[in-house]
Formats: sequence, structure tokens, C-alpha cells
Amino acid sequence: MRRLVLTLMAGLIASPALAQSKEPIALRDMGSFHIGGRQIEVSGQPVKEVLFTPGGVPAKVDPNGTYQVEQMYAQYFLVQNPKGKLPLLLWHGGGLTGVTYETKPDGNPGWLNYFLRKGWDTYISDSMERGRSGWTDKFKGDPVFLPLGDPWERFRLGPSGSWNADKVKRTTYPGVQFPLDAYEQFMKQGVPRWVTTDDAIVAAYIELVDKVCPCVVLVHSQGGSFGFKVAEARPDKVKALIAVEPSATGSKDKVAALKMPIAVIYGDNAKEHPRWGKIRQNVVGYADAIKGAGGNVEVIDLPDIGIKGNTHMMMMDKNSDQIADVMQKWLVAKGFAD
Amino acid sequence: MRRLVLTLMAGLIASPALAQSKEPIALRDMGSFHIGGRQIEVSGQPVKEVLFTPGGVPAKVDPNGTYQVEQMYAQYFLVQNPKGKLPLLLWHGGGLTGVTYETKPDGNPGWLNYFLRKGWDTYISDSMERGRSGWTDKFKGDPVFLPLGDPWERFRLGPSGSWNADKVKRTTYPGVQFPLDAYEQFMKQGVPRWVTTDDAIVAAYIELVDKVCPCVVLVHSQGGSFGFKVAEARPDKVKALIAVEPSATGSKDKVAALKMPIAVIYGDNAKEHPRWGKIRQNVVGYADAIKGAGGNVEVIDLPDIGIKGNTHMMMMDKNSDQIADVMQKWLVAKGFAD
Repeated sequence: MRRLVLTLMAGLIASPALAQSKEPIALRDMGSFHIGGRQIEVSGQPVKEVLFTPGGVPAKVDPNGTYQVEQMYAQYFLVQNPKGKLPLLLWHGGGLTGVTYETKPDGNPGWLNYFLRKGWDTYISDSMERGRSGWTDKFKGDPVFLPLGDPWERFRLGPSGSWNADKVKRTTYPGVQFPLDAYEQFMKQGVPRWVTTDDAIVAAYIELVDKVCPCVVLVHSQGGSFGFKVAEARPDKVKALIAVEPSATGSKDKVAALKMPIAVIYGDNAKEHPRWGKIRQNVVGYADAIKGAGGNVEVIDLPDIGIKGNTHMMMMDKNSDQIADVMQKWLVAKGFAD
Repeated sequence: MRRLVLTLMAGLIASPALAQSKEPIALRDMGSFHIGGRQIEVSGQPVKEVLFTPGGVPAKVDPNGTYQVEQMYAQYFLVQNPKGKLPLLLWHGGGLTGVTYETKPDGNPGWLNYFLRKGWDTYISDSMERGRSGWTDKFKGDPVFLPLGDPWERFRLGPSGSWNADKVKRTTYPGVQFPLDAYEQFMKQGVPRWVTTDDAIVAAYIELVDKVCPCVVLVHSQGGSFGFKVAEARPDKVKALIAVEPSATGSKDKVAALKMPIAVIYGDNAKEHPRWGKIRQNVVGYADAIKGAGGNVEVIDLPDIGIKGNTHMMMMDKNSDQIADVMQKWLVAKGFAD
């Protein structure tokens, strides 16, 4: 019995969730702000009477005039005893918000709490157009809404044909680390996104970097392209870049600017996947161009360092702390933290 | 010179911003989750090829299938040394998000940090449909977007005719406490809202209350109606309710359930305002119905207790801490904090 208890305790102590939650998080400050965007003019529209609340009192709204659009929201947590030498900025991927890095869909702590506990001043933003950044009907084209099953295969929980609306009929890659019971919970984090707004998103991120950097930037998926483009535009401000499963690159014409350390991380089954294999190859080509211009990029395929089963959403995978450890050690090795 | 410095220092020490920021904020945990909502089915739509990122690799998206809609986002901060006896839930008003309670548009700390520093476990949610809760094109009707000038008069910074696109030509009520230089910054916090979604919003708040309460709920503006309706539906869970400038009420048929202490707070110029005067009168009538059924409501008009110049957005006004002090003292008097 005593042996069983000790074994259970050893299991608990090794659990990343408990490993994270031992000590209080002490913050010297926390807060948020909106940044960037522009004002546009609307004219020629009729004045409307709007009943904002059923049972309320109507208000006249003149829809003509100036509108604020394309701003971006950022929330920050500044630790009491910083160990990271620069602020750390976490940028999410497409169709999602900064929630990507908060509590994981299975209820365990995510990378935000991990990096706060490691002593990083951390900024999480909602990409222009998404979440608390707000949106406008003046964006070009239609927003994209994702059906429940779409990310199951596109984010590599399982191969082509593995999704099924019936939970018990879904299949996965062998040893997948995504918490499968939390898939529906993950899909509650999704928000609509446009595919025409990249330039305005990059403009807002550049304003963020101009405000709070020099810094380390960690990006995911669609954020990969934004991270590379902002680093090209502000190489003096982005002092290190970690690109987690970037879905696209910056411009090969501008790689000469990229002298900061860059790590690119892909999970399991990426090389072999029909779409991710191509994406990864594009990014490797971009990384080679950076290296050819004297830059410093490491492409880390997690299975090659013995970390198996990770999906596109590795910050939500069961072993997310193990992957954060890889990034933290890389940042320490590059001199950005003690 | 010494006298000038001392005078300046006295001014700084009296500043709410500095008064709030002396000590670190120690959290035993922080995190977030999405709650509630439902799944809907879409069928008969063609499969699309979507280029999510210019320069990326196209993906096939089948828009048919199940969609998650109407969920709600909540973020929580649990203090290391709680002094509030229950969690405190902060619900924002229409066209806004939980950002309402974070850093004020003038850069000073808002009510979230105030209540954390007073020792309250605090939950901030983005109403169903807004911010990180996401939205769907299946809502009825069109979203409402507010032009830059609309809240200036509707939120009582100035009387009818006081807005002007030219900053220097804007006028205000005498002694207005809203930080006028930060008005454009405030408008960056706005998000689109529908006027057809109240029932789904209330359903999501009820799920939140069922998850994290018993609790104290603090609501603002459109949130007033939601707070009253949820208290009517869950009188055993909502142990106290503070309604800051509620724009509508619950149902007079259901007031018999409301035995918890309720405070209703209005700022300056509300009684006299053509629209807010009517709104306030509706709410006073509802409060009288609660009292008539044996309930306990106090309607606090801030000017009547000597607090002048407050707008509809009093949590962003320069004296926001002074108003929070009124609420904190009320909560202590009712036995919800030491």
C-alpha cells in the first residue's frame, strides 16, 4: 500500500499541471490596452432608432461619421521577479485568439502560466480582427467559420478520414498527445477570421512591437507569417523569434535583416502530412535563405529529439510543458534568461 | 522648491493609480475557460478551397456539418489571500467586452485590479457573441457598429449637441470625470453587437453562475438586465448584486425570488437626461417592486452622496477608485468581505 501511494505521488509530482501550480504567481502589475488601427468615414446612411435592450428605451443612432477600425488588443502580466531579460510576446494562429495560450481545453495550465512561472513578463494579444480586438464589416470578403470536424485532420489529430461526428468512431495518429476528450471544448475557442486582412494584422503587430519591445516573440501557425514579417520590419526590436508550426513565411527578399536567433518547431507527422509537408518545406526553404544570408535558424522537428505525438496545437497537448521546456532551454542557451 | 516637490508628491500619493500599485498582486492561480453554447447543423453548402495565408498552401474546407455557437469566455484571477468571502463576477455592457474592467483608457488601473488588490477572486467574462466568446453569422438581424461620436452623448460625457469630430470643439457636462483625452482610446475597446441575442447571453451567464457561484455579481449597462434576469433564475447562487447604471431590468413577475442585497448605482446627470431619466425611472420601478416583495435594494445616485461628474462609463472615470470604494464598503457592510 505504501509503495502504491509513493508511486502515485511520484506520478503526481511528475505531472506538469502540479509542477506548475506549487507557488503563487506574483505580479508587479497586470493590465491591457488597444493599439493601432485607423479611422474611416461613412456617409449617406439613414439615422436608425435602435432598441438595444428588449424592454429598454430606444436610442437614435446616426451611422454616419467616423469609425475606429483595425485596432488590436493586448493583455500583459509583469512578474514580480523577472528572470527573462526581455518581455515575451505570444501571438496565436488563425481563427483563434490569445486564449490559445491560457488554460488548456483539458483544464490544465497552458504556456502563459508556464512562462509567467519561469519569470517572463508576458504579453498576449488578440490578432487584429479577432477576439477583444473587435472587427468591422468593412473587411474585404466573407469571414470563414470552421465546422467542428475541420481542425481534427487539418491540425493533425488524425490522418485523412479520421474525423467522425460520432466521438467513438473518431481515430487518431498513434500516440497522439492532444486531449481527445477536450476536442469539443477546444472548438469553443474558435472565432471567425477573414483571409484578406494580413496587412492590417501585420501593421497592428508592428505598433505593438514598437510600443513594448525589444522582446522575444513566440508565434503559432498563421502567426508564423506575421512573426517573420514583423521581424523583417523591426529586426532591432524582435531579438529572438520562436515559430511554432508556422503556416507561412516572410519574404526571401528581406532575410538579410534577420540576424536574431530563430527557432522553428514542428510536431509529429508534419513532414509526412500532404499539406503540412509542403508548408514545412516552404518554411525550411525560407530558413535556408536566412542562413544563406548569415542568419541563425534552427528547425526542430520534435520527433527527432524524441518528443512524439504532438499535433499542430501542441500548446494544448498533454505534454505541452515538455515542449515549453525545450523553448525555455533554447532561450536560456541564447542568453535571454538565467 | 522643497514645498513644490512636497506638493507634487502629495498629489502623486493621492493618485488612485499609485495608491493601487504599491504591492504585488499575488495569485494562487489564474486561467480561463469557455462555457455554454450549443451545436447547430449546416448542410447543402459547396466545399471550398481556402487560401488561409497569402503565399501559404490551400486547404479544402467543407462548410457542412456541426458548428459550435453561443459559448462564452471567462477569465479568472484567484488571489493568494482572499478577503472577499465569495468570488466576484464582473459583467460588461453592450458593444463592449470584459476589457471594460481592465486598464482604463487613460492607462490607469481599473476595477479588476482594484478588486484583486482588495482580495476578491475575480471572474471577467466576454458576453456571449462578443470578444473572445466568438460570434456566428447565424444570429438574427445585423450587428450594430457604433460611430466614434455616438457614446459621447449617449454615455453622458456631454449633453445633446456636445459631440464634435473636432476635438477642440467638443463640450461636456461641467466637471465631467471621464478622461477626455482618452476618448478615442476608449472607442478602440468597442466591438460589434447584435440586439437579438439577449436570451442566448442570459443562458450562457446562467451556465457561468452554475459553474462558479455562489458569488457576488457586478454588472454594467446592458449587463444590468442580464444580472437581474440571472439573479431571478438563480437566487440561490447570486448572493449579492451591484448594478452599475443598468439600462434595463428583469421581470416584475419574478421579483419575489430576489432576497439578496442589491445596490443600483447611477452617476451624474442621469436623472435629468432625456433617455437615462426614463431608464432610471424604469429601474426604480423595478426596485420598488423588489422591495414590495420583501427584497432589499438601495438605489445610490452618486451626486446625492457627494460624488459628482460621473458618466455612464464610471469605471473609466478619473475617480473610478472612489466609486469602487463605495461598492467595497457596501459589500463589507453586507458581510461579504472583511
